[in-house]
Amino acid sequence: MKALYFDGSKPVYLDDYKKPVPTPGHSLIRVLMSAICNTDREVIAGYRPDFRGVLGHEFVGVVEDSDDKNLIGKRVVGELNEGCGKCLYCKSGREKHCLSRKVIGMEGLDGTFEEYFVLANHLIHPVPDELATEQAIYVEPLAAALEIPNQLHIKPEDNVAVIGDGRLALMIAQVVSLTGADLTVIGRHPEKWDYFKNVAKTKTAAELGDETFEIVIDATGSPSGIELAKNIVRKKGRIVIKSTYAGTTNIDLSYFVVNEITIMGSRCGPFPPALALLNKGLVNLPPIELWSLEDYEKAFASRAFKVGFKF
Amino acid sequence: MKALYFDGSKPVYLDDYKKPVPTPGHSLIRVLMSAICNTDREVIAGYRPDFRGVLGHEFVGVVEDSDDKNLIGKRVVGELNEGCGKCLYCKSGREKHCLSRKVIGMEGLDGTFEEYFVLANHLIHPVPDELATEQAIYVEPLAAALEIPNQLHIKPEDNVAVIGDGRLALMIAQVVSLTGADLTVIGRHPEKWDYFKNVAKTKTAAELGDETFEIVIDATGSPSGIELAKNIVRKKGRIVIKSTYAGTTNIDLSYFVVNEITIMGSRCGPFPPALALLNKGLVNLPPIELWSLEDYEKAFASRAFKVGFKF
Repeated sequence: MKALYFDGSKPVYLDDYKKPVPTPGHSLIRVLMSAICNTDREVIAGYRPDFRGVLGHEFVGVVEDSDDKNLIGKRVVGELNEGCGKCLYCKSGREKHCLSRKVIGMEGLDGTFEEYFVLANHLIHPVPDELATEQAIYVEPLAAALEIPNQLHIKPEDNVAVIGDGRLALMIAQVVSLTGADLTVIGRHPEKWDYFKNVAKTKTAAELGDETFEIVIDATGSPSGIELAKNIVRKKGRIVIKSTYAGTTNIDLSYFVVNEITIMGSRCGPFPPALALLNKGLVNLPPIELWSLEDYEKAFASRAFKVGFKF
Repeated sequence: MKALYFDGSKPVYLDDYKKPVPTPGHSLIRVLMSAICNTDREVIAGYRPDFRGVLGHEFVGVVEDSDDKNLIGKRVVGELNEGCGKCLYCKSGREKHCLSRKVIGMEGLDGTFEEYFVLANHLIHPVPDELATEQAIYVEPLAAALEIPNQLHIKPEDNVAVIGDGRLALMIAQVVSLTGADLTVIGRHPEKWDYFKNVAKTKTAAELGDETFEIVIDATGSPSGIELAKNIVRKKGRIVIKSTYAGTTNIDLSYFVVNEITIMGSRCGPFPPALALLNKGLVNLPPIELWSLEDYEKAFASRAFKVGFKF
């Protein structure tokens, strides 16, 4: 079958990759659609130097075989992180933080840029019939945005800034917008701001003046985010960091102590509310640009808002 | 009157400092006792280069004159930070974060190492008759410890580590102990650990093994605290930083994002619950060693747990 395999330095297209066989507690999923995430680019750039296997983790598929008979035939999405099931983290609702976790497309498990892959049953979530596959493909990144209100109480009276105007920033802005809070997106790409229309005010950092915010969410993916966040967050305010990048950052920690600022790291999030919000039509996202897996180079080179593969 | 004045480089003992006159909304307080805080040492070391005035901010005194007649004759303690009363922070319960605040003994206002000083009425809290002055002198640092449960929900089922075994660490340990949470104090000075008896387990960092904690509180006052905190906090755990120090710290922010760790800065805290806990006898603190103001050099050189001046 077709697969996009990471050989340790680059993605390699294969048309004779072996179709997997599900182990107990796991399902065989036929991929309908799989989307490129920034993390896939980071894996290719060296973020997971030990990983060898099929890339990809954002998908919509159909369960073809499973020892959970209720899943068979269902259109589904699924979570990335499979924990050991036995440790402190797995037993306290923190499976995605399991120290010996496997992660599809990143660590120990083949991902979703292939015709069939295998996923643990408990990580699988059926997609409601009414929800189009083109929308369901957004469940994983939308869940990552929903991790923010999962960690942090955003009040309708808060004012919130999102730094960044990329894909993740749009998910976050959509989610924060639903709280009713006053929302400003601070970006560098006015050509993308049409996506944020009706969701948030959009500004460049230079246009901010002396505005400050109770909550600042860094979705820049770069170390510049925390510096700007520090400058615009209010005393006793909160900064949520969604950005990961290599290397260390120099920080004046005493500033955060004296001003009692909270910094929260935030990563993957909950799938069921993401499915619910999409199904209720409360989150509207741009169409995905779809390619054949063979055209993976064109797909990775595309500058469309969201890009993926159709199988 | 007697006063210990900071001239920009060192404390100077004066016996002819002018007795202050209270302005509207302020009270004249006769100081009974005033304690040395680490911050006083930091001011002397250059932490507030622009400050000129009388040092000190931890005190118990008696109101001698005030336009709030209910205060006159009362034995009182009081808060440090006097805001402008008009800005966003003053109007949202964050007076201590007012950008144009004055701070007794630190910024724009004479402190408490003198026979009489002046404090805004709304910052003054009467001391219950049953509470000894020697215990009430601990209200301000105890309030700083209480800022932690004010910012953060510590559950009885949590396990908590306090890094540091100094005065602030003891206040924090006393406060956290009242939650019922499993508590470990990590220090370098076993000779001080008697103070922590019945409150917490005490260990050196080397004795920790692979223990990890849901909540880690850094009360070291040094950059080493955050490094140890990072190593022992659980994924999705929380770090509270009480330490302030000059300079920046190099941090691998992505570690905190991927592991969804929260870092909270924490500073001064609420006086009423500190008074209540002391008055209920729920917090027991070592006796303070008292000196005459003239002997300020001996007082600052003392290695007793808590040192102050008696007037």
